[in-house]
Amino acid sequence: MNMLGMFSFRVCAGLVGCRIGICVRSLRSCPGITVAQIDEEVAKLLELKAQLGGDDGKHQFVLKTAKGTRDYNPKQMAIREKVFNTIISCFKRHGAETIDTPVFELKETLTGKYGEDSKLIYDLKDQGGELLSLRYDLTVPFARYLAMNKITNIKRYHIAKVYRRDNPAMTRGRYREFYQCDFDIAGQYDPMIPDAECLKIVHEILSELDLGEFRIKVNDRRILDGMFAVCGVPADKFRTICSTVDKLDKMSWEDVKNEMVNEKGLSEEAADHIGEYVSLQGGMDLAERLLQDQKLSQSKEACAGLSDMKLLFSYLQIFQVTDKVVFDLSLARGLDYYTGIIYEAVLTQVGVVPAPVSTEAQNGAAEETVSVGSVAGGGRYDGLVGMFDPKSRKVPCVGVSIGIERVFSIMEQKAEASAEKVRTTEVQVMVASAQKNLLEERLKLTTELWNAGIKAEVMYKKNPKLLSQLQHCEDSGIPLVAILGEQELKDGVVKLRTVATREEVPKCPLRASTGQQ
Amino acid sequence: MNMLGMFSFRVCAGLVGCRIGICVRSLRSCPGITVAQIDEEVAKLLELKAQLGGDDGKHQFVLKTAKGTRDYNPKQMAIREKVFNTIISCFKRHGAETIDTPVFELKETLTGKYGEDSKLIYDLKDQGGELLSLRYDLTVPFARYLAMNKITNIKRYHIAKVYRRDNPAMTRGRYREFYQCDFDIAGQYDPMIPDAECLKIVHEILSELDLGEFRIKVNDRRILDGMFAVCGVPADKFRTICSTVDKLDKMSWEDVKNEMVNEKGLSEEAADHIGEYVSLQGGMDLAERLLQDQKLSQSKEACAGLSDMKLLFSYLQIFQVTDKVVFDLSLARGLDYYTGIIYEAVLTQVGVVPAPVSTEAQNGAAEETVSVGSVAGGGRYDGLVGMFDPKSRKVPCVGVSIGIERVFSIMEQKAEASAEKVRTTEVQVMVASAQKNLLEERLKLTTELWNAGIKAEVMYKKNPKLLSQLQHCEDSGIPLVAILGEQELKDGVVKLRTVATREEVPKCPLRASTGQQ
Repeated sequence: MNMLGMFSFRVCAGLVGCRIGICVRSLRSCPGITVAQIDEEVAKLLELKAQLGGDDGKHQFVLKTAKGTRDYNPKQMAIREKVFNTIISCFKRHGAETIDTPVFELKETLTGKYGEDSKLIYDLKDQGGELLSLRYDLTVPFARYLAMNKITNIKRYHIAKVYRRDNPAMTRGRYREFYQCDFDIAGQYDPMIPDAECLKIVHEILSELDLGEFRIKVNDRRILDGMFAVCGVPADKFRTICSTVDKLDKMSWEDVKNEMVNEKGLSEEAADHIGEYVSLQGGMDLAERLLQDQKLSQSKEACAGLSDMKLLFSYLQIFQVTDKVVFDLSLARGLDYYTGIIYEAVLTQVGVVPAPVSTEAQNGAAEETVSVGSVAGGGRYDGLVGMFDPKSRKVPCVGVSIGIERVFSIMEQKAEASAEKVRTTEVQVMVASAQKNLLEERLKLTTELWNAGIKAEVMYKKNPKLLSQLQHCEDSGIPLVAILGEQELKDGVVKLRTVATREEVPKCPLRASTGQQ
Repeated sequence: MNMLGMFSFRVCAGLVGCRIGICVRSLRSCPGITVAQIDEEVAKLLELKAQLGGDDGKHQFVLKTAKGTRDYNPKQMAIREKVFNTIISCFKRHGAETIDTPVFELKETLTGKYGEDSKLIYDLKDQGGELLSLRYDLTVPFARYLAMNKITNIKRYHIAKVYRRDNPAMTRGRYREFYQCDFDIAGQYDPMIPDAECLKIVHEILSELDLGEFRIKVNDRRILDGMFAVCGVPADKFRTICSTVDKLDKMSWEDVKNEMVNEKGLSEEAADHIGEYVSLQGGMDLAERLLQDQKLSQSKEACAGLSDMKLLFSYLQIFQVTDKVVFDLSLARGLDYYTGIIYEAVLTQVGVVPAPVSTEAQNGAAEETVSVGSVAGGGRYDGLVGMFDPKSRKVPCVGVSIGIERVFSIMEQKAEASAEKVRTTEVQVMVASAQKNLLEERLKLTTELWNAGIKAEVMYKKNPKLLSQLQHCEDSGIPLVAILGEQELKDGVVKLRTVATREEVPKCPLRASTGQQ
């Protein structure tokens, strides 16, 4: 065996076992490797993978959508359309324009914006050309758009799908491909007025969608940072401790404290101090009280945040939404880019939605109802646009994102449970016949209806049975049938039948143009 | 040096030079390598690449969207919304439901559906887990959806973005990310009725969008195949010769013939025979004539296609669309999956759209107007759903796709050239004040308006100038201003001003609830 042969053999052995691990690790200390060379190696390995897949012989084709994604059937689309219309009406009522951005961005546009969550970004394959990633949210593309077009003020909404390689939990409305409905206000304005409008919008949308009781928690990154400072958290641990505080809605204080002390190395004393603050909830009164707090008032940042919080509540009173808004010091939110006010809306009515009777629901009690959770969130991010601007010019922004998938889940369950049928088309009239050989006449009348702007259907059969034509109307909720027969054609009329009541008007004049446009 | 050390060294050397190539190649003969192990190796190499990329130092950040993609600004979105509304209204008038599918599919779902165009598919990076690709059209995902849900008849539309790694020509509306608006009818019906409805829909949409003169070419894959057979094209060359014929709208007959003979090895005689047929255009009369054609009538397939073409034209007459439809034997269409009737709509009015006066337009005469081309296309594909069904059950389908990006380009140019301003918001009234310290009162009135469902805006400033408030109304086309002052507040009224005419109603009662809901 010559050296080359032995070498090959050994790499094979490495792949089968674990020795190749050592090999790749050792590359790190190997100077002179270029990205292009790595690309080449990766391409070869992936080609090999493709061959293995292809040569496997009996390859079972799997008929499914990608993990964490779903199709929307017509019924789901009808519900989705209704929800979107409610949300878009609200955004338009508040004077928003809309924009759209591509589904993928240059990879570097997304780099360094999401902290620990960056690992969840979908990258596109390097097929030559640019390195691309699917958008992770709509906020970073929005900031990129503002910087690229040098826009310094705009009020815009954007409804589109975003992508996260997260662990899907589809029964609870958590997907890898999901919609976000964002509303943002960019521009230099007097403090807290746009911030208050964002909360007004959340209030309007959640009320109109009629999802049951909800609460909107607000806090401020400056209050959090000030609190961390006065509690003795080292400055370089602010963000990581903030991430831990963010888990308070899912974990007990004991577990959160444990993570702070044992995983993140915070002193027990500092953790206990934080624990006192994060248990506080209130309204404008709490902001006033904390401004007097001996410790917290030592932080200039906290004071600025608390003063703004007072101002915010004064506007919220004018907007008539204080019934649902709570100043909650435990609200932290994970994303890195927030700089001021932050908020999150949660549904508080547990189990109002009856569970559909399915084996799945019966097997797992935890899946019985859509779990209550965050349905909207947002905050102020004054630094993000500057990260894209070559001269680092800042454009202050505040916005909110409606977590629409959970809303869909709830609405779908409601529709399931309701006796009312969801219509998936808007057809007003079906052109039918009881007799044979009238296809041409049916098509003629349908053409007249279409040309007059009336939503009409006709069966694509030469001689369909009247019963099957009527059945189709029942199934899809078409309210009217226009029935043609030899006699009607002779008289130049049509028999019009109301499907629900079976009432008939025997001699309607055959003029579609008198119908609604 | 022990064996392990030597091994590591050699792999490094391989990466730097070319020896690893031998290594990877030799893996193919190595039994027992699993896909999971390759995944692991690839992940390690890519991690290494990321590290190398991170150390590159002076990296220049580029502020742009990915090649071949674009943002839509609010004005473009307003145009887009208008176009979509026209199209959706038409689809709904014809009784269509809508569905949605994920933006990516399992790679294997797309494999083998697009012939030569498969190289244009965007793949996602292999980040562990499934191999995914961005959808290339909406037809294949639709067929996958039907097979997966065992749906045997549906009439659905789907409007969504698709992705092709093509050479972009953005001034002519050719992008790598672009919208398709698809309408398809699946189900076993009497021949040519749904096919004719698809053409009726194209006719309605192109008429309503008011893009100028257009023509809809129709042909049939069976007529093409029959023609190829009687002209002496070997059966295995049908598809590739078909691709060449498809170029007749861009190339002269001489060039097409040259490609057939010199590149694809067809005899000159066969090519000339084809040349005679593909120059033919007509209506039902041409179909009748060709049914008598000595040569063509020898092909059963061609006869079936020609009989159906006659039937199609009889329905098109009833639908009142024969003014625009031409039976054109040169129409071929590139995609593999068509099995029957095919069609394509083209705009025929050259240069009707005035060119915007820009340096770009002045420099390049070729760019002066949006180039005329295909704006819709489709056909019958009876075999595609069966490709996904485990038992190969067929579901006959026919559909049409509106090439909306070209329509956008034309509409945008029209809007540019028109004096009329495109509004990007729907705001009805601006709440303003000429005096200082009335922020609270402005916000109160705005809240009343919002609560009454009126689209209203207010400036986010404590003391904005009246002029800048009025200027904002002019800029964004807000028709009304409600002006508050001390006197008005005392009297419980508001001054209402029509922006365009400057007419004022001095004492409107301060009751928003009397406004429109």
